[in-house]
Amino acid sequence: MAVYTEVTDEALAAFLQAYELGTVTSFKGIAGGVENTNYALQTTKGQYILTLYEKRVAEADLPFFIGLMDHLAKAGFPCPQPVRNAHGEALSTLADRPAALVTFLEGIDVKAPAANLCHAAGVAMARLHRSAQGFDIPRANALNPAGWPSLVADGRGGADTVEAGLEALIVDELAHLQTVWPHGIPDGIIHADMFPDNVFFLEGRLSGIIDFYFACNDYLAYDIAVSLNAWCFTADLQFDRARAAAFLAGYQSLRALEEDEITALLILCRGAALRFLLTRLVDWLNVPPGALVVPHDPKAFSARLRCFQAMNSPWELGLDRR
Amino acid sequence: MAVYTEVTDEALAAFLQAYELGTVTSFKGIAGGVENTNYALQTTKGQYILTLYEKRVAEADLPFFIGLMDHLAKAGFPCPQPVRNAHGEALSTLADRPAALVTFLEGIDVKAPAANLCHAAGVAMARLHRSAQGFDIPRANALNPAGWPSLVADGRGGADTVEAGLEALIVDELAHLQTVWPHGIPDGIIHADMFPDNVFFLEGRLSGIIDFYFACNDYLAYDIAVSLNAWCFTADLQFDRARAAAFLAGYQSLRALEEDEITALLILCRGAALRFLLTRLVDWLNVPPGALVVPHDPKAFSARLRCFQAMNSPWELGLDRR
Repeated sequence: MAVYTEVTDEALAAFLQAYELGTVTSFKGIAGGVENTNYALQTTKGQYILTLYEKRVAEADLPFFIGLMDHLAKAGFPCPQPVRNAHGEALSTLADRPAALVTFLEGIDVKAPAANLCHAAGVAMARLHRSAQGFDIPRANALNPAGWPSLVADGRGGADTVEAGLEALIVDELAHLQTVWPHGIPDGIIHADMFPDNVFFLEGRLSGIIDFYFACNDYLAYDIAVSLNAWCFTADLQFDRARAAAFLAGYQSLRALEEDEITALLILCRGAALRFLLTRLVDWLNVPPGALVVPHDPKAFSARLRCFQAMNSPWELGLDRR
Repeated sequence: MAVYTEVTDEALAAFLQAYELGTVTSFKGIAGGVENTNYALQTTKGQYILTLYEKRVAEADLPFFIGLMDHLAKAGFPCPQPVRNAHGEALSTLADRPAALVTFLEGIDVKAPAANLCHAAGVAMARLHRSAQGFDIPRANALNPAGWPSLVADGRGGADTVEAGLEALIVDELAHLQTVWPHGIPDGIIHADMFPDNVFFLEGRLSGIIDFYFACNDYLAYDIAVSLNAWCFTADLQFDRARAAAFLAGYQSLRALEEDEITALLILCRGAALRFLLTRLVDWLNVPPGALVVPHDPKAFSARLRCFQAMNSPWELGLDRR
């Protein structure tokens, strides 16, 4: 939750000159967004979000992110649509950073989504997977199992200061997942970070999905596993099978999972728990002086990992046996 | 720039139930506001700002702040208007904090206002001083000369680590101002923090003034002195007499300064510089771990203070001799 980069009056005016958005009527930094700086921009033509890409986002990936949002929006998927300037560019430069303007989405994120909203989120994820088909820029998942060992190394020294036994939990889980990680199950473009704060609802209906900055090519079922971690735990870190069942039923109402995906799903849930545990741990141990962001607690994901470890079958996740 | 307090779905819904604002279509934390947590709220009825008062604001002062905005808005002054709920309250409770909803003001703050905008700001300040007449809740200025010695004590140990000679500058200035501070010049309600980030413009016209949380009873000319500090220095901390002349001419187009105010104005400018120097210094030396706010640099105001110290007469500030 931060504005990392201030924009001067002149820089904003120069940037907007290439767009045909009328007169600016409001421009406010948004508290939220760990990776980038976001401003809510209102003009006489409408409402927009202006994003300045900070250094945690690789500039080479921006055509993928912008292109994906464009592709999805054109397919009717409710995500921000990049706005092109008079030169036809959806990506330009502001305050020495790559910057993009996208349409504003109505709706609010729900912090503790009930089962009906989890169902809607599952439907939307299946729609996302389908709508992304035909998008032809590839992007590898830097946070897949091949990327975890370096995170494990980064977090190793401090893990046990966060939670007793955390280092062993991580090292053992990594070794286990490396042997059982699935191969050859259906893949495609995934969101990879579809947490409740990236999903908007309006009067109980899903109105939009934002923040595609972890999107990549990976197993479709891994995307589900991320969201089972994100949507289906109670505040006291218990797995909520009713919500998970609703999410899975919503997803499968559009796209039925294949047998090999079902077989892999519990492993993928453990992997997703480990992935967020690792990045949170490394961020937790490396808060820079003057940080504008409170790091997320890694223990929220060690608890999830232990919870998935205690399950014996993917059916315990709430899949409908039909 | 921070959201200090998160609002749960249920708490927001319960809070808004007492208002008749239609359906919520957007709710985003605003990065900005050092003292309080602010959310931009959009509903089918309009746009609002929701403020949660954090502990730096004394709860006993809230009826003053809310009442003042209400008084000013009803007098036609362009400031946020508190919205009353069905119980007639403009102040209630949300997330265990006092909270108020006010109308949204269009416009953007200009980081480096040119002379024509300084003129408009001067006009608006005179209008504010006039519009506040008849508001009958008093509030003492806690940051007037009587409040400075305790800030000096708080900053004493660390001042010279910020800037060589800063402690002597502060101690000597305090002693000087205590002997020459004016008495009996015109007073009333002042904004006391009318910096450019609290003033909105729309197509070159002043559209609104926000953030009345330092407002108090004090000398009207002290308010001018604060804004001469805030509006009339270049990025390299040189006094910009043209902008100051514009601000003063704008103010005097509505309310001519009296002779004793003119005589005092340079002293008041030094006092205002010292006041912001002191609070910035104390904040700078006391950044709590996990702070979400980057403290402002105190040196920006030691430079202003030295600049005013080097002047020999209030006429050097750009007053029109008429």
